[in-house]
Amino acid sequence: MSIHPTAIVSHEAKLSDDVEVGPFSIVHGNVEIGSGTKIGSNCELGVPSPLGNGSPLRIGDGSTIRSHSVFYESSFFGQNLTTGHRVTVREMTQAGRGFQIGTLSDIQGHCKIGEYVKFHSNVHVGQHTLIEDYVWVFPYVVFTNDPHPPSNIMQGVRVKSFAAIATMSTVLPGVIIGEGALIGACSAVTKDVGDHRIAVGNPASDRGETSKIKLKDGSGKQAYPWKYHFNRGYPEEVVTAWLSEISNP
Amino acid sequence: MSIHPTAIVSHEAKLSDDVEVGPFSIVHGNVEIGSGTKIGSNCELGVPSPLGNGSPLRIGDGSTIRSHSVFYESSFFGQNLTTGHRVTVREMTQAGRGFQIGTLSDIQGHCKIGEYVKFHSNVHVGQHTLIEDYVWVFPYVVFTNDPHPPSNIMQGVRVKSFAAIATMSTVLPGVIIGEGALIGACSAVTKDVGDHRIAVGNPASDRGETSKIKLKDGSGKQAYPWKYHFNRGYPEEVVTAWLSEISNP
Amino acid sequence: MSIHPTAIVSHEAKLSDDVEVGPFSIVHGNVEIGSGTKIGSNCELGVPSPLGNGSPLRIGDGSTIRSHSVFYESSFFGQNLTTGHRVTVREMTQAGRGFQIGTLSDIQGHCKIGEYVKFHSNVHVGQHTLIEDYVWVFPYVVFTNDPHPPSNIMQGVRVKSFAAIATMSTVLPGVIIGEGALIGACSAVTKDVGDHRIAVGNPASDRGETSKIKLKDGSGKQAYPWKYHFNRGYPEEVVTAWLSEISNP
Repeated sequence: MSIHPTAIVSHEAKLSDDVEVGPFSIVHGNVEIGSGTKIGSNCELGVPSPLGNGSPLRIGDGSTIRSHSVFYESSFFGQNLTTGHRVTVREMTQAGRGFQIGTLSDIQGHCKIGEYVKFHSNVHVGQHTLIEDYVWVFPYVVFTNDPHPPSNIMQGVRVKSFAAIATMSTVLPGVIIGEGALIGACSAVTKDVGDHRIAVGNPASDRGETSKIKLKDGSGKQAYPWKYHFNRGYPEEVVTAWLSEISNP
Repeated sequence: MSIHPTAIVSHEAKLSDDVEVGPFSIVHGNVEIGSGTKIGSNCELGVPSPLGNGSPLRIGDGSTIRSHSVFYESSFFGQNLTTGHRVTVREMTQAGRGFQIGTLSDIQGHCKIGEYVKFHSNVHVGQHTLIEDYVWVFPYVVFTNDPHPPSNIMQGVRVKSFAAIATMSTVLPGVIIGEGALIGACSAVTKDVGDHRIAVGNPASDRGETSKIKLKDGSGKQAYPWKYHFNRGYPEEVVTAWLSEISNP
Repeated sequence: MSIHPTAIVSHEAKLSDDVEVGPFSIVHGNVEIGSGTKIGSNCELGVPSPLGNGSPLRIGDGSTIRSHSVFYESSFFGQNLTTGHRVTVREMTQAGRGFQIGTLSDIQGHCKIGEYVKFHSNVHVGQHTLIEDYVWVFPYVVFTNDPHPPSNIMQGVRVKSFAAIATMSTVLPGVIIGEGALIGACSAVTKDVGDHRIAVGNPASDRGETSKIKLKDGSGKQAYPWKYHFNRGYPEEVVTAWLSEISNP
């Protein structure tokens, strides 16, 4: 274990033997951190909160939490969580393996997030958002939940597997984004988007099948489904499965 | 008083007896903090600045400043200020009681803010913005001030009482948003919005009276004015007054 | 040299004699900081990274890095860099003199930035962005780079000298913004913008020459080129050159 001498780690926190904690970071008592995980400087993990359910903040093996990040208690993350800097995660969030949270992203809590989901910088996730596996979310995307703010009604967004939501798009309350769908940049998504459909604009409108978008590399190949040409950062067994789909369509 | 041993608090700062200051936080000399206020970790309060007027940063009783927040000198906040994480507030801002500033919000200074105003995460407030009482501002809203940037001309936005400005909307310089008005998500508000009117779009256009929006709870009731169905977090006397308006319209 | 006793500064870092480093800040070994530079509190400079090229983080003379900022190794900044709070700068970025980076801005690395470029708060700069001299970028502007996300293809944006990009605008991959061009607020810039042209909207469309915009100060003068009426913060020799252009057009 490598706890920097300036870090403040509660004796009640359960840290695996080889966890690293950087300078000026704070780990509260209601925290469990898996093997090989590295916590950067100036973080605060397991912030106590009356909005939690008493369960610990659990962070899986092999994770990296970058500096100035804040996680509350009562959330659970699978193996290989990776964050940028200054990430905020509130209570009651669950995420699968390989979750990537970009710098400045803000997860409001009570969210469910699948496996190998990737958020770029500055993504804002309202409460009760549901995100399935292998979804990509780009900078300044906002998932909302209140259909007539302010109110006590919350209608979380649902994003299905392999969807990609481009920069500066907002998804309105209760909207369902289909599997493998693409939301173009700067869109306001006010209604459901079908599987493998493109939606763009403010308000967003349907622009056809994702299969019509060609890769801008001169190959003439399709840009979507993206899993057939982009696999950086995914585990080998996942990539092998994707590639075998191409060979055996 | 509960000052964490790692915190750096100037002997000149005036802190009430029961103020708490968290680890790795800094309180400069030109600061006055009221009774019962809690300062989280990694904050810096009362940053000295030539752009202030020499007056202290004053934070009212019963406030909560969450971690990694930065406040400059020469601003004043009434009782029960509550902030998220990583809030920035520059010089010469005044706010009434019950001001709530969400995580990552950035107040550029020289602003006037009324009573019980609530900012969600990541709100950006340009200099010379004027916000009246009971206003709601949602994530990624920007209040601008320069009609032809860059220039030395500043035309601050004015938002009247009970208005609600939904996610990812930008209010252009000098615009006045009427009492109880609703700005829909992803709007660019280029001209004044009347009292109790809805404006949506880029550029925003008038969409009628807010009274036509029904609550999505099956009750058939109006969603606006929101004060008749939403009152979480407001003081009892305020809520009582709102409810009596319904009984005695 | 004025290193706060709580700061952690590597013995390998090369700091000029009069550098100041604030409380709870970290300076790693692969860092060179010029004369008169002031580092605020809670910063981390020279973060080691396998994505760098081994070269140091170099920060020029007379710079100011405000609190909670993070800079990786292998970037270079000329004299008089000034940052707001919580700035992030990744590897392999080069910027000329007088670069100003606003609070919460996030530079993803592999960018080239000219002289006296000014970013307001919360600007997001994708990899391979190229920004020429005297450019202004306002809050929540995003420079993208991936034409069909996610993919391995990066088409960086290019912004030519004296252009101004207003609040909440997104520039799509590979777009070139002309010299002295003005992008209005809340625009999605999907195609190139000519020199001294105005583009506004989602998607942005051409709205004529910038010369038609008058200053809202009653003078009847043109608002663009802005350098003829706005020169706060530029060095004297630059301002003198601009003013002589007016006298000798």
